[in-house]
Amino acid sequence: MNLKAEFLECQKEKVKEIEGILKDFLPEETGYQKIIMEAMEYSLMAGGKRLRPMLMKETYLLFSGGEKRREDKVLHAFMAAQEMIHTYSLVHDDLPAMDNDDYRRGRKTAHVVFGEDMGILAGDALLNYAFETAAQAFDLLPEESGLIGRALKILSRKAGIYGMIGGQVIDVKKTGEAVPIEVLDTIYELKTAALIESSMMIGAVLGGASDAETEAVEKIAKNVGLAFQIQDDILDVTGSEEALGKPIRSDEKNEKTTYVTVYGVDRAKEIVEEMSREAAAMLRELPGDHTYLEQLFLQLIYREK
Amino acid sequence: MNLKAEFLECQKEKVKEIEGILKDFLPEETGYQKIIMEAMEYSLMAGGKRLRPMLMKETYLLFSGGEKRREDKVLHAFMAAQEMIHTYSLVHDDLPAMDNDDYRRGRKTAHVVFGEDMGILAGDALLNYAFETAAQAFDLLPEESGLIGRALKILSRKAGIYGMIGGQVIDVKKTGEAVPIEVLDTIYELKTAALIESSMMIGAVLGGASDAETEAVEKIAKNVGLAFQIQDDILDVTGSEEALGKPIRSDEKNEKTTYVTVYGVDRAKEIVEEMSREAAAMLRELPGDHTYLEQLFLQLIYREK
Repeated sequence: MNLKAEFLECQKEKVKEIEGILKDFLPEETGYQKIIMEAMEYSLMAGGKRLRPMLMKETYLLFSGGEKRREDKVLHAFMAAQEMIHTYSLVHDDLPAMDNDDYRRGRKTAHVVFGEDMGILAGDALLNYAFETAAQAFDLLPEESGLIGRALKILSRKAGIYGMIGGQVIDVKKTGEAVPIEVLDTIYELKTAALIESSMMIGAVLGGASDAETEAVEKIAKNVGLAFQIQDDILDVTGSEEALGKPIRSDEKNEKTTYVTVYGVDRAKEIVEEMSREAAAMLRELPGDHTYLEQLFLQLIYREK
Repeated sequence: MNLKAEFLECQKEKVKEIEGILKDFLPEETGYQKIIMEAMEYSLMAGGKRLRPMLMKETYLLFSGGEKRREDKVLHAFMAAQEMIHTYSLVHDDLPAMDNDDYRRGRKTAHVVFGEDMGILAGDALLNYAFETAAQAFDLLPEESGLIGRALKILSRKAGIYGMIGGQVIDVKKTGEAVPIEVLDTIYELKTAALIESSMMIGAVLGGASDAETEAVEKIAKNVGLAFQIQDDILDVTGSEEALGKPIRSDEKNEKTTYVTVYGVDRAKEIVEEMSREAAAMLRELPGDHTYLEQLFLQLIYREK
């Protein structure tokens, strides 16, 4: 098996493990309100790369030394919480008053299956349950309440108005409008990078990283998030409709400002290269074995779809 | 001044104080995503009885001895968080796909003023910011992280699928359908009583109540919440349109199951009386001065509008 095939095999195993953890933290489908638990499961178990919980765990392993530890169960609660937050944002994003999407990853979206009212409530339920799940950690390891509190603070801040929701708001408001590069950077930072940052930062905190190390992790994650998003801009011009599974050159058609419209394809590619090299260099400064994490970064940044 | 006038004067003062606390915890209106902060403030500062933060504080005072304490600032963060959760539920409840209300307390609802997409995002932002606000408590008083963790667990659970959202789901699904009394009780418990329970329980926990005392507080709050909701059923039949500011006999018209349709007005009144007497008796078992809290219960339960 070559290196890439080995990485993909390993990634598949890790995704399977994460999906097991997600299932463990889903609520039992019972009571008169059972339908909302079904809608939560439908949305959470819809597949995907499980990127955020994976980044959280891999970062945790860097600092925890890779051994089984008492903190592992707390980590699992936060991995599930983070994926619930990511999922709720997709459920609300797909609503008729937002992007009005009937399909996601080839499956009908939650509001199409369960009705628009249940779509709104399922998103609310997932967001609330994310914090309920993370708060379970206080029972799992009460003597580490301070550490859990720090992780909770990161989880909530990066998902909110200074993070993901903030980016979503600007993106919705600026749709179809040319924006200056500072605004574009803010959208990318908040909408895409913020949850990648919190995933890796929470992993670091729970794994026992120092404040300085957690800050370094935040910078790495920001670079990865931005490079990921700029690669998206590039693929819209250089990608194939077949690989992407969606029409290309849509940004141009919608007169959207992107890194490609501002800098051109070649310079945009250089920027991705710089950001990704910087992230890899910073990663190598951290303790632990970062082989898998570095490959994951490369896969994310230099993807063709 | 008679007793009732004195109580009302005192209540007015307390509402003013709570609104000051809410304003303190609102985010600064700044950045490219400023509009979402404006929508949050518009919804949170729309008036109202501020019942939940008030119950939280009054319960806290029972156990804390009424003196200024270090925990006060933590309490304020949770008071604001609880009112944000209550407010987000109203914002989402008013959306076109839910109750489709254009006005609340004589003011245009958030989605009418800011657009439906911002209505969804403002609700999300308030729910997320509630946890962000509560999580500030870990910085305010790190040595009490265990206590804050317990309060956060109550806050999230009672607002979620086993609390308010759960009640909302059943209510939406059973609209226009006759329901058995067990389902009706579950709706009232979850949709109305759950946030009253968490408000009082968090006050108790932060004030230093024991587990047994916190359980007693939960029972009191449940009785108050249920009695409040049954009184609503009674007023729909016995109230005046003038005092209520809405048409009466709407439950009958909508063929809704209520305590009045199941038990009749007289028995429903007796049930309210029993629940309220039981709550007052349990309250008197708790430490501290409960004069104001008892009057507040009576005002809530025996209201005419």
